[in-house]
Amino acid sequence: MTSDNELKYWMGFDLGGTKMLAQIYDDNWEVLAKEKKRTKPGTSAKQGVDRIIDTIQDALKKADLTPKQLKGIGIGCPGPIDMEKGILLDLPNLGWEEVRLQEQVSKELGCPVAILNDVDAGTYAEYRVGAAKGTRTAIAVFAGTGIGGGCIYRGEILRGSRISAFEIGHIQVMSNGPRCGCGQRGCLESVASRLAIAAQAARTAYRGDAPNLLDNSGVDLSKIRSGALSSSIQKGDQAVEDIISEAARYIGIAVASSVNLIGPEMVVLGGGLVEAMPELFVPQVKRSANKRVMPAYRDSFEVVAAKLEDDAGVLGAALWAEHQLSPTKED
Amino acid sequence: MTSDNELKYWMGFDLGGTKMLAQIYDDNWEVLAKEKKRTKPGTSAKQGVDRIIDTIQDALKKADLTPKQLKGIGIGCPGPIDMEKGILLDLPNLGWEEVRLQEQVSKELGCPVAILNDVDAGTYAEYRVGAAKGTRTAIAVFAGTGIGGGCIYRGEILRGSRISAFEIGHIQVMSNGPRCGCGQRGCLESVASRLAIAAQAARTAYRGDAPNLLDNSGVDLSKIRSGALSSSIQKGDQAVEDIISEAARYIGIAVASSVNLIGPEMVVLGGGLVEAMPELFVPQVKRSANKRVMPAYRDSFEVVAAKLEDDAGVLGAALWAEHQLSPTKED
Repeated sequence: MTSDNELKYWMGFDLGGTKMLAQIYDDNWEVLAKEKKRTKPGTSAKQGVDRIIDTIQDALKKADLTPKQLKGIGIGCPGPIDMEKGILLDLPNLGWEEVRLQEQVSKELGCPVAILNDVDAGTYAEYRVGAAKGTRTAIAVFAGTGIGGGCIYRGEILRGSRISAFEIGHIQVMSNGPRCGCGQRGCLESVASRLAIAAQAARTAYRGDAPNLLDNSGVDLSKIRSGALSSSIQKGDQAVEDIISEAARYIGIAVASSVNLIGPEMVVLGGGLVEAMPELFVPQVKRSANKRVMPAYRDSFEVVAAKLEDDAGVLGAALWAEHQLSPTKED
Repeated sequence: MTSDNELKYWMGFDLGGTKMLAQIYDDNWEVLAKEKKRTKPGTSAKQGVDRIIDTIQDALKKADLTPKQLKGIGIGCPGPIDMEKGILLDLPNLGWEEVRLQEQVSKELGCPVAILNDVDAGTYAEYRVGAAKGTRTAIAVFAGTGIGGGCIYRGEILRGSRISAFEIGHIQVMSNGPRCGCGQRGCLESVASRLAIAAQAARTAYRGDAPNLLDNSGVDLSKIRSGALSSSIQKGDQAVEDIISEAARYIGIAVASSVNLIGPEMVVLGGGLVEAMPELFVPQVKRSANKRVMPAYRDSFEVVAAKLEDDAGVLGAALWAEHQLSPTKED
């Protein structure tokens, strides 16, 4: 028996572009304490890492714990990650590059750290305790302002040879489609993200074909959030429903490509758009994907809505830390 | 020391739609003996399995070996495979379904058997001893009459949750594109296979824009093979070169989607089309894929021509048998 056996706590950390969140979990994955801070824009990576460590320390204080009492910390970060080396490669919104986050946090606090992409973290949480629990290979598509994706392949997060992978939002689904933020044309994100849908819905509203949306949100893209789209459909804006249906069809095409390549058992749909209108997205994505896959894959996968909500990322980071860092793994 | 240590021989078997080939390898992967038979159409699965066993027995006779002297047999088969259970799920050209090939061959001959998809076998050979040697994650695209693909993920053949995977020929690269044999529209195979290219080249020749092709092959698709396309370009048919270039661009789009999803280090291009014109395909696929991937993946992968030729499938099946069945794996 080592003293490791007395440690019961894991920490999940979600580094977002606007906020950072630390949560301490007991061995039943119940939250013991949490701490949230704003991610300050315009700071250096060094200042950012210090602020991450402060947030972790403050959460520990609330739970009356020291870092040595944590079995490990999982940190989910936006952007590409080198999972082997624990390096955050690029955080364009904050201007951070090549941050050796795992090493720095681990050294400062004296406990093991694992880092991963934040969408992978959300996907892993759905796999371990959410909608994909009990499967071995599952993919997740999170459709919000952008579109992110993750894949669990035979119980592990699928990872590229150098960086985190499964960027389903950037596979092409429309030849010569609209420009995407990544510089390409016709990426899934460019036709089916909240922003892409809002742009089409605003145009439709401006022309007078979506009166409820026009009344409630006008044609300002920043106001056409997922909830506004959903309520305009409920009030009878058929044109908006058609736009959502078309977006779901495109998600289905990208899902079909992923199924043809990777053959998952389960496809989890999440993100703000899907949370606001699961009854529109889930059946349409399923129909479209199932129609588009090779015959051998037809009905080989389920399509379901995500079960976990906002905390999926921070919980997934903690669960991944447990998976990666558990002493029993090394025994 | 068990008697296993005295066994040195592996057998690779390639079950094709028109021929079956068995090759016995020594521990340097040199061919010791081989046997080829025609795959008889219109026979039952039972007769087919008997013929496979006959072919194996005949190859063994040539090498003066008994089945017990084989460490194992790897059998590559077209169509979807259940790799865990060793079941050939569907062989449409021959009308075979749900054949428990691994169990039947293993029981009959009394030696271990592994079965896998034939394109996966070719990919695995390129990974072990060919163009992708030394990598950990690599994909291969084989463009011939159809388009097949395989993926090695962290040293193992990527497999779907129920069946073999990486059907890159059937991911959509053109919205509302031509009809594909799988029933969909705009699959990579429908725009970039030898058959798709030949159909476009024939049309061009018929219109008088590819005089060399017209002289040599006419407009009969069965005569417009990869070699005919290549020689018409060499003789100056610019229109045919443009068609090839467009096909390579589409392969690049499908490769880009695969890179965005899986992040391989290496992309191997093979098959009759690429073998006939590597200097046209390799740089154009590389350019197109590299342009289309997310910025984080740019220049993260190489694109190269396959090194192994016709024997890649049978050799890959033997190498996979070694990987799956080696006694040292269980130690």
